[in-house]
Amino acid sequence: MSNNKKIKIALFLADGCEEIEALTVADLLYRADISCTTVSVTDSRDVVSSHNIHIVADTVIGELDFDAYDMLVLPGGMPGTTNLRACDALTAKLVEFAGSGKQVAAICAAPSVLAGLGLLQGKKASCNPSVEEKLIKGGALLSQDPVSVDGNIITSRSMGTAIPFGLEIVAHYQGREAADRLAANILYK
Amino acid sequence: MSNNKKIKIALFLADGCEEIEALTVADLLYRADISCTTVSVTDSRDVVSSHNIHIVADTVIGELDFDAYDMLVLPGGMPGTTNLRACDALTAKLVEFAGSGKQVAAICAAPSVLAGLGLLQGKKASCNPSVEEKLIKGGALLSQDPVSVDGNIITSRSMGTAIPFGLEIVAHYQGREAADRLAANILYK
Repeated sequence: MSNNKKIKIALFLADGCEEIEALTVADLLYRADISCTTVSVTDSRDVVSSHNIHIVADTVIGELDFDAYDMLVLPGGMPGTTNLRACDALTAKLVEFAGSGKQVAAICAAPSVLAGLGLLQGKKASCNPSVEEKLIKGGALLSQDPVSVDGNIITSRSMGTAIPFGLEIVAHYQGREAADRLAANILYK
Repeated sequence: MSNNKKIKIALFLADGCEEIEALTVADLLYRADISCTTVSVTDSRDVVSSHNIHIVADTVIGELDFDAYDMLVLPGGMPGTTNLRACDALTAKLVEFAGSGKQVAAICAAPSVLAGLGLLQGKKASCNPSVEEKLIKGGALLSQDPVSVDGNIITSRSMGTAIPFGLEIVAHYQGREAADRLAANILYK
């Protein structure tokens, strides 16, 4: 178990991101007392989700000190996922984090970003049915589990699995029992 | 079944609202092609959630034409629920909607707002454990179900029941089968 206060997670928001896949992670991390920074992948903090929700991110990617972070998290949604994939400053860091044993997590369509970078080769991974072919092409071992964990990569399938995805991130740092307690606190079955 | 295109739902955002309880409803309604307007209860569209997420609402309550709406939805969270209760322009309309047979829905701590206005007297209702006493005091018939429906009032319990809550609103307008299809689409079990 790590000291929560030192753990820092960066959650990347692009225009067209799925707001619940993104913000469920922020919500659960806040409840678990783990630091979560929302990061716009443009030079504006203003982000518009795939369902037209206007969110103001905590910061922008150009100002992010990646070295201070322990995990990078990618929500899905379209065209949010395409916009994440097109952000070179982000994809370079995803490769660096995955290669150095730091944590990377992605949900819904976003695991396809990891697959496109070659980061899921030979790894068990979950994703939205709409991008399964991209994961297979990237050499992933496709799983239908709501959440998959393989080494330092956590993946999940859809908006309807966002809570298990967030809980898995909490479990990584605080253990399964803490995640189960959090699930009970929010009355999640 | 109503014509979706004519259905309009107002979702009220106060500072300190629980962002997932609020935005899960917006997300599911968007997917169901039902109009959902996010409404700040102050004179600013800027809202900060209970977990420090900055959201820009579609409009402010002073500019809302309530007559054009079919349902009013209240997310929980603290102090968001206290702020909803303190908004006279909102509480007057909750009383009017409930009395005229229009729809009202509330989740987590927010059913206590309805109870405080006398709108749950003799009605089956679900809420967060933290406000159960307020519902009992208001004459509600307390339920432990994730979602309760009694007449024109829909209530639910917590962030972990936000998806069933949103699906129940969809079911009200489009039927159970449509809500079940939506649940399957988002891979919700």
